[in-house]
Amino acid sequence: MPRTLLVAQAGGATTVINRTLAAIVSEATGKFDRIIGARRAAEGLLAEDFVDLGALSPSTLIEVARTPGAALQSSRYKLSDLDIEPALSILRAHHVDAFLYIGGNDSADTVHRIALAGGGGDPLHAIAVPKTIDNDLPETDHSPGYGSIARYIAVATMDSAKDTESMPGMYPIKFIEVMGRDAGWVAAASTLGRRSDLDAPQLIYVPERPLARDRLLADVEKVYRHIGHVVAVVSETVRDDHGNPFADPSQSGDVDAFGHPLLRGTAETMCRLVQAELGLRSRWDKPGSLQRMAMGQASSVDLAEADEVGREAVRLALRGVTDRMITLVREGNEPYVASISSAPLGAIANRQQLLPDHFLDDAGTGTTEAFRSYARPLLGPEPLPGYARIDAVWTHDAGYR
Amino acid sequence: MPRTLLVAQAGGATTVINRTLAAIVSEATGKFDRIIGARRAAEGLLAEDFVDLGALSPSTLIEVARTPGAALQSSRYKLSDLDIEPALSILRAHHVDAFLYIGGNDSADTVHRIALAGGGGDPLHAIAVPKTIDNDLPETDHSPGYGSIARYIAVATMDSAKDTESMPGMYPIKFIEVMGRDAGWVAAASTLGRRSDLDAPQLIYVPERPLARDRLLADVEKVYRHIGHVVAVVSETVRDDHGNPFADPSQSGDVDAFGHPLLRGTAETMCRLVQAELGLRSRWDKPGSLQRMAMGQASSVDLAEADEVGREAVRLALRGVTDRMITLVREGNEPYVASISSAPLGAIANRQQLLPDHFLDDAGTGTTEAFRSYARPLLGPEPLPGYARIDAVWTHDAGYR
Repeated sequence: MPRTLLVAQAGGATTVINRTLAAIVSEATGKFDRIIGARRAAEGLLAEDFVDLGALSPSTLIEVARTPGAALQSSRYKLSDLDIEPALSILRAHHVDAFLYIGGNDSADTVHRIALAGGGGDPLHAIAVPKTIDNDLPETDHSPGYGSIARYIAVATMDSAKDTESMPGMYPIKFIEVMGRDAGWVAAASTLGRRSDLDAPQLIYVPERPLARDRLLADVEKVYRHIGHVVAVVSETVRDDHGNPFADPSQSGDVDAFGHPLLRGTAETMCRLVQAELGLRSRWDKPGSLQRMAMGQASSVDLAEADEVGREAVRLALRGVTDRMITLVREGNEPYVASISSAPLGAIANRQQLLPDHFLDDAGTGTTEAFRSYARPLLGPEPLPGYARIDAVWTHDAGYR
Repeated sequence: MPRTLLVAQAGGATTVINRTLAAIVSEATGKFDRIIGARRAAEGLLAEDFVDLGALSPSTLIEVARTPGAALQSSRYKLSDLDIEPALSILRAHHVDAFLYIGGNDSADTVHRIALAGGGGDPLHAIAVPKTIDNDLPETDHSPGYGSIARYIAVATMDSAKDTESMPGMYPIKFIEVMGRDAGWVAAASTLGRRSDLDAPQLIYVPERPLARDRLLADVEKVYRHIGHVVAVVSETVRDDHGNPFADPSQSGDVDAFGHPLLRGTAETMCRLVQAELGLRSRWDKPGSLQRMAMGQASSVDLAEADEVGREAVRLALRGVTDRMITLVREGNEPYVASISSAPLGAIANRQQLLPDHFLDDAGTGTTEAFRSYARPLLGPEPLPGYARIDAVWTHDAGYR
């Protein structure tokens, strides 16, 4: 019987998910007789929309590895209980020994259910390979994908802040809206370029901490009075003190031409609120998909780890392991060393690792040194930009009369 | 009498405007007795809010040169006719021989009026130093600032497109909103990473071409039917066929909680229109100030030219020239060579260089080879990312049954 490996990429794409795919193909070559890719994750699996990854030329594989996004294409379709048996039948019909699923929390659950349904005597070995910019997978120190978006957001915040610092008289208030489904890991990363308390972002807002509208206004006004401008980084999923999305259309009273409540972004909502209530001109940036696709700013540590978790998944499947997710274990910070391990999917599926309390300061609007020590190494050893703080240039060096 | 140079930075900041400032200080050192910076452009000039640039340490000057934004801070305050005499009096009181103003169209007009008011016998030499991401200054082949934003937008479009290509079943339509006051130079630059007609962006929309709503919907639907997804790059200032902003709130019928028309972004407006009329799920990115601040992606050619125009302004002022703007003259494309010259401000002030017709294709939704030959060298010689086109990987290499 030929040995067959099947791999798919599920959920939101990232900068490094193709690096994982290419590593799996590379590691499996010569060890499996067939290396199959299922397109569009669970959708393509059920439709048997398969491609022959073993036929990719080495040069194409290298091109794929350096391309952000999901080369197999992805999907958020989640296998229902009714889909499990058909999926298993397809895997068996193609004699799949190793089922490798690159994804986040939902994907871990999918792999877990397939592994359980396969049963102990089944030759199918189902392994989840972690990827998520949200960094919310439990049982792993961090997830491939996070280091790169963290680096992007840290630098983007430093960049965008220079615009605000350049024209505080025009637009003193800036909101930057970043990703993060239920956890504030990405927003927290915006603080990694700070060198002093005056540096941007002066405020962050994360989904872990509900935010009353009055509290936002008080925070912004206080920082503005202190330094004359404000750069705030906000998770798109920040909630208000009633547990509703901060951008809740039923709260804003805004309606479209047909009278339907208008949903808008969190940063845009905050911008309007600050303009209306404090009379301060405000702007907002929404890098959107750019933040998870900027290969030019990917973390070298993240890329290397994305490669390693893919290779380890192949090795585990070859050793007959099933129902586990590959994990990263931090061994030390100076120098940063992480090892590769794995954890049972039952401990991962449908659980989320939120920002722990000790990673946020008392106000919840900044990070602690504990967070920064955790996150900095994930950005890779390459230095962050060495920008001047615009007001500090003149305070320290000059003054002409 | 001491020789005195005064410099200011006006209008929107860019990635390279501090490089110009540092070059001016470097070139003027030893040639002028005093090098003064006016903070917040015309505002600081009138308020005599000056700093001693000659006192900056060399290390601070280097730090300023690599920092995006306007280190002197900027302003959009435009000198009124009543401000000209007070401004001149201040310049004379400080014995300013050389008045160097780094800015775009409005700034050229300011410098022109100061030069004219100064008169022929005046020792004041007023020189405009070009900078604008909008690339809309006449009399110069291009403007410092444009090459860097062009590179950023070209790469950002390639990046963002990978997200759309990865999940066309989820969000087949993507709009990316870019800067551009009255001209579409920035949106046009998004095409510079294309290697085939199928590559993003499949559509661009620029202020030079009015856009009817039906036309947008027809364009999007046509591309979607052809390749299954659409990435469109839109200038924030696109106008409809009645000459109104495409995002005109009076057209949308959307109102806020107080019944006031709601202004929203052009991309967001298009997104809603496509979702409502075509039933296609759409997303949008708005890099906002990131696009003009991303020093990590600045063009090496742009940085070098930003340096050169600053130095030339100092040299011209020393030679007793006044009422001119420094210009870039293209000498050749292969290899790219540009020389430094100057043009009279009377030919520049309050004029705009829009995208010429032959830089846009017949439909107005793409660029011509003439534009690409013009713009590519400005991005610098560093290669653009070599990404795989995700559907092409499988078409050419694989297919498993």
